[in-house]
Amino acid sequence: MTKFTVLILGSASAAPTLTRNQTSQLINIDEQYYLMDCGEGTQLRLREHKIKIQRINHIFISHLHGDHYLGLIGLIQTMHLLGRTNELTIYCPSNLQEIVEVNLRVSESHLRYPIVYKHVDAKNSKLVYENEKIEVISIPLNHRIACSGYLFKEKPKRRRINPKAIKTYNVPKHQINKIKLGEDFVSENGEIIKNLRLTLKSLPSFSYAFCSDTKYFTPIIPIVKDVDLLYHEATFSDEHSERADKTHHSTAKQAAQIAVHSGAKRLIIGHFSNRYSDLNVLLEEAKTVFEKTEIAEEGRVFEVSFLQ
Amino acid sequence: MTKFTVLILGSASAAPTLTRNQTSQLINIDEQYYLMDCGEGTQLRLREHKIKIQRINHIFISHLHGDHYLGLIGLIQTMHLLGRTNELTIYCPSNLQEIVEVNLRVSESHLRYPIVYKHVDAKNSKLVYENEKIEVISIPLNHRIACSGYLFKEKPKRRRINPKAIKTYNVPKHQINKIKLGEDFVSENGEIIKNLRLTLKSLPSFSYAFCSDTKYFTPIIPIVKDVDLLYHEATFSDEHSERADKTHHSTAKQAAQIAVHSGAKRLIIGHFSNRYSDLNVLLEEAKTVFEKTEIAEEGRVFEVSFLQ
Repeated sequence: MTKFTVLILGSASAAPTLTRNQTSQLINIDEQYYLMDCGEGTQLRLREHKIKIQRINHIFISHLHGDHYLGLIGLIQTMHLLGRTNELTIYCPSNLQEIVEVNLRVSESHLRYPIVYKHVDAKNSKLVYENEKIEVISIPLNHRIACSGYLFKEKPKRRRINPKAIKTYNVPKHQINKIKLGEDFVSENGEIIKNLRLTLKSLPSFSYAFCSDTKYFTPIIPIVKDVDLLYHEATFSDEHSERADKTHHSTAKQAAQIAVHSGAKRLIIGHFSNRYSDLNVLLEEAKTVFEKTEIAEEGRVFEVSFLQ
Repeated sequence: MTKFTVLILGSASAAPTLTRNQTSQLINIDEQYYLMDCGEGTQLRLREHKIKIQRINHIFISHLHGDHYLGLIGLIQTMHLLGRTNELTIYCPSNLQEIVEVNLRVSESHLRYPIVYKHVDAKNSKLVYENEKIEVISIPLNHRIACSGYLFKEKPKRRRINPKAIKTYNVPKHQINKIKLGEDFVSENGEIIKNLRLTLKSLPSFSYAFCSDTKYFTPIIPIVKDVDLLYHEATFSDEHSERADKTHHSTAKQAAQIAVHSGAKRLIIGHFSNRYSDLNVLLEEAKTVFEKTEIAEEGRVFEVSFLQ
């Protein structure tokens, strides 16, 4: 099975606390690392979890409130200090480039590695990245300033070799790769064995959606339809729904409603206001609407490829 | 005695470690707080030490390498979130203002309190701040980019009331304040009692010098002459003196030489390269030159007003 996990590095909202760091998550898809947001102190959280920072080649920034990007300059500079030469791609609102560049300019830092900025349009859902295994699609959110979530989707996987059939039809080893790629097999006596007979059903493809700061916003629903794991912010409890609305944040109940309506398999809630020392208030509230809810606890690893 | 302490919030150099934070110190002079440098994560360090951040009205930034200022934007924004209205004054290289302003602009943060920037000339030693108790003088340092240290000096204190003499000469209570201010006393029968007879010697005035990133630089010496407590960076040991020279940093031995030549009473060394897990190497090296050296350990409070 493909490795597809989400490590929670921070779950606080604007003001960090001693137990909750600012937003950041590390997505690991078969040892390819993708960093989601980068609040102040993220480089230390990565170090705590023994994450090799030079293996992060893609950083996604949802929006330019400090609690989501203020750790980025430090991380970029530490990557440089530790000898990075590999390109780093940052998916972000266009203004972020100006911020990074002014910091590098005043400190007279001349990075030995290139940074590529991919400016994400916060108004339209678009494919922002793909490789042979996954695609990443932006999710327009509704916050006080331009803000995008990101949907990570594994592409459909190839059918798997059926070792029994390979033996039965005497398929030579050097043909296996072609069969993996979907070809039929022609035996020594000219018989055509269809690929379907030589292979097994492909493994399922999984998906993870990161919905950073947003008020309750139904246009998210069709984009994250049937997602395996949904992260949705839940800054407040229902009791503070007016405050949530005013500050363009969501309540735990609203996060759960998005999970229900999108047919998500599981939900993680995070970005908690520092008024909640006991997060069970938020967890219980979400669970009344959507049972399979969990808390984005610092240091917790969620498996996205989770067979039910 | 006046309270005059230095709390070490961070002692790492460029790359933070899990045990050493980036540079920041809190100077407390009679419950007036002065923050020296503000590396990433400083707001959390302040929180750990239960420091009320709204009581910080003056922040001094030595230079614009990330490990000395990247925590500033987060601190400014948290001060705002927690309802600050009092003016904040930042003493810094002029470029810092551009950095703060671009961050506030992109996040559409409209602070409810004013920030006043005092641009510090890194080439000349000047008075940058004073109040009735202290003066702060900049110390030009020799680093890769413009960099200033700061000397905090208590002004000469007034002579103290001598309770015995007050009784002997029957000085009425309402006259005490005038005597504190230096006036003589005229008794009922017209006799003039000189102020010197009514008062005791004033308490000594103390001083603290913060010499952030710099190579060995003798022009520091006359500025910090006879300082009570000297903080001087000691990024490397003597074994790496070439690297120190190349990167415009000091060795522990060089820090101690500055202490000797300036007649400092005590020395704190800090800004340690992360290659040193055992700081005793640096401490012992400095002590061979200047015995009264100590390590800038995270969380340690140094008394500046220390009578020997």
